[in-house]
Amino acid sequence: MIKVIIAGFKGRMGSAAVKMVQEDESLELVALVDPKTSETAVDGIPVFNDKLSLVGFDADVWADFTIPAVAFENTKFALENHFCPVVGTTGFTESQISELISLSQVNKVGGLIAPNFAIGAILLMEFAQKAAQYFPDVEIIELHHDNKQDAPSGTAIKTAELIKEKRSFKKQGAADEVETMAGARGAEFDGMRIHSVRLPGLVAHQEVIFGAKGEGLTIRHDSYDRVSFMGGVNVGIKKVVEIDTLVYGLDHLL
Amino acid sequence: MIKVIIAGFKGRMGSAAVKMVQEDESLELVALVDPKTSETAVDGIPVFNDKLSLVGFDADVWADFTIPAVAFENTKFALENHFCPVVGTTGFTESQISELISLSQVNKVGGLIAPNFAIGAILLMEFAQKAAQYFPDVEIIELHHDNKQDAPSGTAIKTAELIKEKRSFKKQGAADEVETMAGARGAEFDGMRIHSVRLPGLVAHQEVIFGAKGEGLTIRHDSYDRVSFMGGVNVGIKKVVEIDTLVYGLDHLL
Amino acid sequence: MIKVIIAGFKGRMGSAAVKMVQEDESLELVALVDPKTSETAVDGIPVFNDKLSLVGFDADVWADFTIPAVAFENTKFALENHFCPVVGTTGFTESQISELISLSQVNKVGGLIAPNFAIGAILLMEFAQKAAQYFPDVEIIELHHDNKQDAPSGTAIKTAELIKEKRSFKKQGAADEVETMAGARGAEFDGMRIHSVRLPGLVAHQEVIFGAKGEGLTIRHDSYDRVSFMGGVNVGIKKVVEIDTLVYGLDHLL
Amino acid sequence: MIKVIIAGFKGRMGSAAVKMVQEDESLELVALVDPKTSETAVDGIPVFNDKLSLVGFDADVWADFTIPAVAFENTKFALENHFCPVVGTTGFTESQISELISLSQVNKVGGLIAPNFAIGAILLMEFAQKAAQYFPDVEIIELHHDNKQDAPSGTAIKTAELIKEKRSFKKQGAADEVETMAGARGAEFDGMRIHSVRLPGLVAHQEVIFGAKGEGLTIRHDSYDRVSFMGGVNVGIKKVVEIDTLVYGLDHLL
Repeated sequence: MIKVIIAGFKGRMGSAAVKMVQEDESLELVALVDPKTSETAVDGIPVFNDKLSLVGFDADVWADFTIPAVAFENTKFALENHFCPVVGTTGFTESQISELISLSQVNKVGGLIAPNFAIGAILLMEFAQKAAQYFPDVEIIELHHDNKQDAPSGTAIKTAELIKEKRSFKKQGAADEVETMAGARGAEFDGMRIHSVRLPGLVAHQEVIFGAKGEGLTIRHDSYDRVSFMGGVNVGIKKVVEIDTLVYGLDHLL
Repeated sequence: MIKVIIAGFKGRMGSAAVKMVQEDESLELVALVDPKTSETAVDGIPVFNDKLSLVGFDADVWADFTIPAVAFENTKFALENHFCPVVGTTGFTESQISELISLSQVNKVGGLIAPNFAIGAILLMEFAQKAAQYFPDVEIIELHHDNKQDAPSGTAIKTAELIKEKRSFKKQGAADEVETMAGARGAEFDGMRIHSVRLPGLVAHQEVIFGAKGEGLTIRHDSYDRVSFMGGVNVGIKKVVEIDTLVYGLDHLL
Repeated sequence: MIKVIIAGFKGRMGSAAVKMVQEDESLELVALVDPKTSETAVDGIPVFNDKLSLVGFDADVWADFTIPAVAFENTKFALENHFCPVVGTTGFTESQISELISLSQVNKVGGLIAPNFAIGAILLMEFAQKAAQYFPDVEIIELHHDNKQDAPSGTAIKTAELIKEKRSFKKQGAADEVETMAGARGAEFDGMRIHSVRLPGLVAHQEVIFGAKGEGLTIRHDSYDRVSFMGGVNVGIKKVVEIDTLVYGLDHLL
Repeated sequence: MIKVIIAGFKGRMGSAAVKMVQEDESLELVALVDPKTSETAVDGIPVFNDKLSLVGFDADVWADFTIPAVAFENTKFALENHFCPVVGTTGFTESQISELISLSQVNKVGGLIAPNFAIGAILLMEFAQKAAQYFPDVEIIELHHDNKQDAPSGTAIKTAELIKEKRSFKKQGAADEVETMAGARGAEFDGMRIHSVRLPGLVAHQEVIFGAKGEGLTIRHDSYDRVSFMGGVNVGIKKVVEIDTLVYGLDHLL
């Protein structure tokens, strides 16, 4: 049984994490942290206002879904007290991340800071990067609801950047290609093409399509609901107790 | 049994049509026409150099896969001799088509001139046009091999034009939509978006995606091989004998 | 402006319908009906406990999302008072439907009883039925969440029945086909095959795949949310005022 | 420049390999081997009837597309003469493979015996196996032309076996699941389901669909033409010169 403390348990991610930990028989929720609440226990789980009360507490993992202003100090505290941090808060600076990694190595405590807990999206990016080594011809189609302001999506750009790292550069399409209607061939990124579809009813979807002589390989991720992030938090909790350094990015643990 | 004459039987479409007619038990190949060949029979089917030799011949349908220069005269000849023409040659002028339609009505002979015999593509366009009446939010993704020069494809533009006829105009996407990379949202046509994917391995594919609150409807056509046109020729042959006017476009017979 | 009365406005469908009518500028919500509520008005719209109070009321359409026990009498009342009924309640007997159709014709009042308001699903079935006339080779894949008890889904069976009506019978697959693992080829229905996928994360999806020499045609419907039914209710309200008989099934109005 | 000998250059795979090597600027075709041909050169490349004539020949790779009866001796010969073997012939016994691996290690010569050179199919299997570690809910849909006799396909079964190695066992679907039509839920393999679609027009396609709360991940491979195998042969040739043991399966080099 991995004993888990959850800080920031009243927010959207935090409360989903409470539910996830309680439903997993290999995890035990041992403490909740929130500086402002007046409750002393929830479902029999003790609630603490001050993290200092947890010095010496019997726990393995410190899952943190607080705000950027406190997450850095929380993570330091966790590392110093040998609770493996699993941090979903974003907004750390590079120097903060470096400092936390050093601290984790000094204390030999595993940890994870993850800007993205969607395992499916991370696997898609990893697979796409690998396939690009063998299939340099690739196009990305990302599909979102029609209230999304920016195109392409951040995930599509990130995917293209990861592909670029491994793909032999190639300007795709016919040499004499002509757009009879501007934009038909999508956005160009390093010779690849990215297409953004916006329609009501859609949530967040992405397809990476590779083509080669006589074959095609397509990887698609469909994201319907934020609840999907909890799979990644679950993996993070189970993996950090097995390592002895803090890593940035869930991809390092998959 | 429908008795079929095939003119232009040595070309790519014509020879495929010979094979198709011979394999269909409800069709009988009764004559072949080619002005230049020296053969007098192929597989026991008589071959004629001059169409005038076929005046009074016992046949129902005149399938024509000749060149534009002779197809018009051939079609007139067929109508005047009560052979229902099924014509795959393109390049007729509007006035030629009008003249042939009038002639067919005077003679009460059914007929078909079809610029496109791909039933799947025609059904896709018909279905897309109908769905657009209920789902004004629609994007088209067409995918072709990477030697294709023009984008979007002719079929995609034709599909968009047909949709436009029935769809209530709508400028799609978010009102404050921003392309952070030019072309990401594809080509705009009447407020719709068209995206052109080009990859080796692909042949000719098209998806029309409709989105509405809480649902989506997608229609996709995959074309792998020219042999698919024969299904349309087959339908044409069987339908023209049941009508008493010439029509332009296989969609009128589906 | 079409003036709409909504009966059963407190239920899930009814309250969604209230919102839909209020958001459509070509519709005007003029009255609400519920036998048990104590409110006399909601958002300025009068609420009635007894339908008899609406005799002579100025309205065009009676949208009914009540329970089977009252929907029949409500529909009769609507037809007799020249409110075009749009009824989403299911459970009418065939003789009740016949009686209502006769009554509508006597009164020359349009109306709609619809067991299914999902336009996308209805269009998919219509398109599949049409395509099956030209492509006798077809398989259905339906995909649902993994709590669904029955397989195949009712919609898949209904789709197969509609296809059967128009398709030339064909036993699909190779003549010497062998299942090395039982069930691999799915359920057989009139020579067609139906496959049921069950996975967490999925909602309700259906693909109908047609194949022919050298081409394929796929029609897919994705249903994410009950809100999608409101598009069908909207179409129903706008169409019933243009007809002078009651019809059973939204497909008759598409 | 990697210097390549091709044995069995007159067969379907061998002749495609000749073309592929000639078109790749980083490869040089230096010799062809066929015991029965009377030609002494093809396109200026020397042809040998007896492999013994190649002892001491200046080459790096021995690509072998011969028949099982000679491939084993050929591979031994290549390893002994420090030509890295890339062997597409199937039918080796386990003890033959062990013997060849030992011989390669003694001689410190890299090599590859590959029952499957389709990179896309191999990547699909690798990705599916990895994803299954995080997403235990998975179904496989394989789609082939309707002349295929067996269902499921060998690739689908192989994929399921690979997934099984890494996936926590789970009996999928609802606990109270009922097939109202036998076979609807497909074939069961270790709690997973496999569905086989057979339609004219299709070639060889496979989808592996993972589902989890709020998300889905789909990996699809489309195989249209045997030419796709050449990408794998190309990778094999380039990788074997960098290793010092023979491996079985292209997946070990991707």
